[in-house]
Amino acid sequence: MTETDDMNYGDLTLHTDKYQVNMMYAHWKQGSLNRKAVFEVFFRKLPFNGGYAVYAGLERIVAYLRQLSFGDEEIRYLREQEERYEEAFLDELRTFRFTGNLDSVPEGTLVFAGEPIIRIEARAFEAHLIETALLNFMNYQTLVATKASRIRQVANGDVLLEFGTRRAQEADAAVWGARAAYIAGFHATSNLRAGILFGIPTKGTHAHAWIQLHDGEEEAFRKYAEVLPDQVSLLVDTYDTLRSGLPNAIKVGQWLESIGKRLMSIRLDSGDIAYLSKRARAMLDQAGLGYVKIIASNDLDENIILNLKQQGAKVDIWGVGTQLITSADQPSLGGVYKLAERENARGEWEPVIKISGNPEKVTNPGAKEVWRLVSRETGKAIADYVALRRETEPAEGKPVLLFEPAHPFLNRMVENYDAFRLLEPVFRDGELVSELPSIEEIRRHHERQLALFWPEHLRLLNPEPYRVNLSKTAWELKMSMLEQHRR
Amino acid sequence: MTETDDMNYGDLTLHTDKYQVNMMYAHWKQGSLNRKAVFEVFFRKLPFNGGYAVYAGLERIVAYLRQLSFGDEEIRYLREQEERYEEAFLDELRTFRFTGNLDSVPEGTLVFAGEPIIRIEARAFEAHLIETALLNFMNYQTLVATKASRIRQVANGDVLLEFGTRRAQEADAAVWGARAAYIAGFHATSNLRAGILFGIPTKGTHAHAWIQLHDGEEEAFRKYAEVLPDQVSLLVDTYDTLRSGLPNAIKVGQWLESIGKRLMSIRLDSGDIAYLSKRARAMLDQAGLGYVKIIASNDLDENIILNLKQQGAKVDIWGVGTQLITSADQPSLGGVYKLAERENARGEWEPVIKISGNPEKVTNPGAKEVWRLVSRETGKAIADYVALRRETEPAEGKPVLLFEPAHPFLNRMVENYDAFRLLEPVFRDGELVSELPSIEEIRRHHERQLALFWPEHLRLLNPEPYRVNLSKTAWELKMSMLEQHRR
Repeated sequence: MTETDDMNYGDLTLHTDKYQVNMMYAHWKQGSLNRKAVFEVFFRKLPFNGGYAVYAGLERIVAYLRQLSFGDEEIRYLREQEERYEEAFLDELRTFRFTGNLDSVPEGTLVFAGEPIIRIEARAFEAHLIETALLNFMNYQTLVATKASRIRQVANGDVLLEFGTRRAQEADAAVWGARAAYIAGFHATSNLRAGILFGIPTKGTHAHAWIQLHDGEEEAFRKYAEVLPDQVSLLVDTYDTLRSGLPNAIKVGQWLESIGKRLMSIRLDSGDIAYLSKRARAMLDQAGLGYVKIIASNDLDENIILNLKQQGAKVDIWGVGTQLITSADQPSLGGVYKLAERENARGEWEPVIKISGNPEKVTNPGAKEVWRLVSRETGKAIADYVALRRETEPAEGKPVLLFEPAHPFLNRMVENYDAFRLLEPVFRDGELVSELPSIEEIRRHHERQLALFWPEHLRLLNPEPYRVNLSKTAWELKMSMLEQHRR
Repeated sequence: MTETDDMNYGDLTLHTDKYQVNMMYAHWKQGSLNRKAVFEVFFRKLPFNGGYAVYAGLERIVAYLRQLSFGDEEIRYLREQEERYEEAFLDELRTFRFTGNLDSVPEGTLVFAGEPIIRIEARAFEAHLIETALLNFMNYQTLVATKASRIRQVANGDVLLEFGTRRAQEADAAVWGARAAYIAGFHATSNLRAGILFGIPTKGTHAHAWIQLHDGEEEAFRKYAEVLPDQVSLLVDTYDTLRSGLPNAIKVGQWLESIGKRLMSIRLDSGDIAYLSKRARAMLDQAGLGYVKIIASNDLDENIILNLKQQGAKVDIWGVGTQLITSADQPSLGGVYKLAERENARGEWEPVIKISGNPEKVTNPGAKEVWRLVSRETGKAIADYVALRRETEPAEGKPVLLFEPAHPFLNRMVENYDAFRLLEPVFRDGELVSELPSIEEIRRHHERQLALFWPEHLRLLNPEPYRVNLSKTAWELKMSMLEQHRR
C-alpha cells in the first residue's frame, strides 16, 4: 500500500462512465441518494477454458477508494457538461467520500464463476460511481494473474520472468500486470517501475543494440561482463546463435572464471528454441560451463512452453512477454457488478433480481456470503457454497446441502468440514478496517490456495469443474422472484 | 498537452526495462555514454490483416520525455539493486535529461509496415532508457486507433461511442484508448477522465441498476426523464425489450413531448440487435417518435456491425466497448525500436544492420527519411519512399525510382509528384520544437489522410497493399553490409 500511496498515481475520481454521474445526479434530484444498496462483483465464465481464476486487484481498489474526491478541476469539468447539473449537486460532490462497506476475497485466492468476489454495501450515490473503476482493475489484474498461474503450472518450477512492458496495453497494464504475474508465482519482472511500486524483484540483461553499438560480439560481451561481472547474462542471437553467439559467450564465460566469477546465463530470443537450447546446453557443458543457465524468450505462452518441454528443450528460465501481459488468447475478463439487494423508500432491505432472456444472465437476488467448504478428512476444498448473508449453517458447521436444481441426483450433504468465509471486511463505513497483506504474503496465500484444491480442478486442459453451489434458500428466493415477475 | 501536464500522471522515469539501465551503466563505465546513435521505431506487419495503421501515441511520448528525471526515490531504489551500481553512476543519473532529437510522424497519420514512424537521435545513454516506454505507448495507442478506424469504416457515418473502460487493460488503457478512438473518428467516450484529460466529448445514459433501484421500469424511466429532460436515453432491455422496455420508453417519450421536450434515444444492450432494432424502430415510428435514435451496444466490433447492417438493423448510434479497447482480435502491435546508425569510437557516423536467420527481421541500415509521394494528377498517394537521410531527390522533386528488388518488372519511375516528409521534428537537443496539435486538429488531419489514399488500400478485407519502397541507395547499402557480414 504505502508505495502506491507515495507515488502519485493520478487522480482517478473521474475514472468512471458518465452514466454513473448521471445516475448520481438523478438520485440526488429525487432525494434517493442516501438509500443503500448491495452490489456484488462476479464473472460468469472462467477465462481460457480453465478450471479456476486467481483474484487480483484489491490493493488498487483500496487505493482508488481512499483517494476518491472531487476537487476544483473535476467540479469545473462537470459544470461544463451538456447535462447542466445544478450547482447544489456539484456542492454535494465537493464533500463526497466513499463511506460504504466493501468486502473482498483476499488477493491470490482461487475464485470461480458465479460467486461474488467483491461485495459493496453503500449509498446508491456512491455505489454507482465506483462500479467502472472496480471492474476495470479487477477484470484486468485477475485475468493476468490467472494467465500467469497457468504458465507457472507448465513451467513446473523453472524461473519465470515477466518481460511484457513494450507490448502491454499502456503503462498501468505493464505495472499492474507485472504485479499480478508475481502474485501468481512469477519470480521477477523487467519493469523497474513495477519494482519500485510493489517491491517485486527486477531482472535484466542487455539488448541486441548493445552488441550493435560495439565493433564485434565478443568485444560487446566482454565489456558487459567487465562492468557487471556478477550479473552476466548474454544475448547470443544477434548474428548467429551457434556459430557466433555461443562461442563468444563461452569465451567470456571462461574469462569470467579466470577472474573468479561465473557467467550467469545466456539468452535465446529467436529461432528454434527447442533445437538451439539443446545445442547450447551441450556446448556450454562441453566447455565446462554446466552451471550457466539458459533463458528463452520470444512470444512464449503456456502452450509453447509445454511443447518446448515435451521436445526436451533445455531451458532453465522463461521470459514471458506479450502473451501474458495482454492475455492474448482472451484479452478481457467479463466481470460484472450487479445489484443484489436495495433499501426501498420505506427503509426496508429487499432482494433484487435482474431478468434476462439469456438464462445465465439472470442474477442471484439477495446479499450473499461465499463459503469455501474444506474437508476435514482430506484437507481439500469440496465446493464453494453461496448462501444468503443471513444463513448461518456454514458458520456453525452444520450440515449443508450441495444443491443442484437441474441434476438432483448430484445433491449431496456435506458434514465434517471447515467453512472459510471468502469475503473479508475491507472497508466499514468508509474506513479501511483490514491491513492489506504484503505482496510476499499474497504470494504465499496463493501457494496455499493451490494446495487446497485437487489437481483435477486446476489442470490446464479439460479440468474437472469445481462445484459452486447456491444454497437451497438462495435458490428458492430466486425462483419465487422469477415467479413473481412472470405474473 | 496542458491537461496531461496539469493532472499528475505519475513519474514514469522508471517505466523501463531493467536491461536499459544496465546498458546505461555499462556505457557509463566504459566511457561511451555520450556517443550518439539513431534508433528508428517501426512495425513489420499491419494489424488485423488490414491495409493501413493509424499512428497515435506522440502526445504521451512528448509528456513522458519532458518529465524524465531521476529523483531521490528512484536513485534510492536503484542503489538497492543487486547490480550494485557505483555511486558516481547514480550521480550521473541525477542530472539526466532527455537531450536528444526526436522526429515523428504526426498523430492521425496513416502509416505502413516497414517504415520508420519515430526516429531518435540521442546519446546511447538516453536512447536505451526510453525504448521501452516509447514502444509501450506507440504500440497500444496505434493499435486502438487502427481498430477504431476500421470500425468507423463500417459505421459509415453513424455515431460511434467508446464504452470500454470496465474491460480495458487497466486505467491508462481506458483513457489513452478513448483518445486513440477519438482521433480515428469516434464521436465520444463514456470515460470522464478521458474527457477531462483530452477534451473528448463524453456521453452517458443510465444502467440496468437504475431501473432495479425503482419499483418499476416506467417509474424509473420517468424519474430519469424528469431529472435530465434534454438528455434522455433509455435502456430498454432490463426486463423485456419489446413488451416492457419499449412501451414504457414510448410513454415517457410522449410525456416528454407534453412538456415540450424530446426523448433523445433508446438503448439496446442484449438480445438480437438486428431483430430488436427493426421492431423498436417500427414501434417508435408508429408512436410518432420517429426522431428517437436507437443505440446498440454489446460486444460489437467491425464484423458484427457490418453483419447487422447487412441484416438491415435500424441502429443510429453504436456503443463499442471490449473489442475496441482491448483490440481483442489482435491485442498487441509488434512495433520495434532498432538501431540504424551509430557514432563510432572515432566520432564518425556509421550505419548498423541487424542480421537474423529470419529475413524480415534483418533491419535496414542507416538513418532514414520517409517520403510520401502524392500524384499531382490524382491527388492520391502513390507510395511511401524510404531513403537514407542524405538522399535529396524527393525534397528536390526529382524523379525517384520505386524499386522492387525481388520483382524488377514492378520498378517504376515517379515524376510529377509532391513529396511530404513524414517524420517531423519534435525535439531538438532535448527541447520541444513543435507545437503539438489539438485533438480536433489531429482528427481533421486523420480525415485528410484517409482522403489521400485510394479506397482499395483502405478496405477492411483483402486490401490492395500500398507500396512502401526502399530507395535504391538504401537497398544497396543493405546489400553491401550483408555481403560484408557474410565474409
